[in-house]
Amino acid sequence: MAASPIVTSKRRDEAVRGVRTEVVCTAFSNSILVVVTQYGKMGTLVYVDPDTIGDNVGRPSLSTKVLLGKDEPLVHVCAKNLVAFVSQEAGNKPVLLAMALKDKTMEGIQALREVIRSCQVW
Amino acid sequence: MAASPIVTSKRRDEAVRGVRTEVVCTAFSNSILVVVTQYGKMGTLVYVDPDTIGDNVGRPSLSTKVLLGKDEPLVHVCAKNLVAFVSQEAGNKPVLLAMALKDKTMEGIQALREVIRSCQVW
Repeated sequence: MAASPIVTSKRRDEAVRGVRTEVVCTAFSNSILVVVTQYGKMGTLVYVDPDTIGDNVGRPSLSTKVLLGKDEPLVHVCAKNLVAFVSQEAGNKPVLLAMALKDKTMEGIQALREVIRSCQVW
Repeated sequence: MAASPIVTSKRRDEAVRGVRTEVVCTAFSNSILVVVTQYGKMGTLVYVDPDTIGDNVGRPSLSTKVLLGKDEPLVHVCAKNLVAFVSQEAGNKPVLLAMALKDKTMEGIQALREVIRSCQVW
């Protein structure tokens, strides 16, 4: 059996702006799974997919699809803000995001992004 | 910060009937996430949900829904066979299953069930 694991995973458990938060990032060969929970629940499941066509300057644009949970505009905005950079840095892989957020402010999202970055597996 | 983690996770990386396999189980307060991969990919995403009504003898029946990937009958059969016991043992919680299987034989599924059981977090 090979020494390296099939999939790589990192997790962080810390207070983010006073809210206890757990982040788990797992890298598959063709996608990244990001779990962000501040409730202990799996929460809303969103698939963030880089479109193959892209925008005018050649960067792929991201489509977001709610697979489980409430499908409302804020969910799509939060999802893109949280994991667009993950998709880009992973070489435009799709990201499956499970999020249960208490703090959905801009500052909260930004702080969560840093925690996700600290769990870099891509 | 409390000592116990928000979510509990266990993983196994082993050869199952000669096929290298990684299993990761994560318990959320209201659901269980089970990842089974023999390809290093996330594979097909299936939501296995105990129906609230149940069958005639009072046991909840399970509905399966493919959220990502090929929606074909074998996927539903494999998903139920793999994680029905997880849902039941967890107190009829829904299970989100990501599976990328090389070995879809009855014996293969049964062997995988034992690996999942060894990652019991529910």
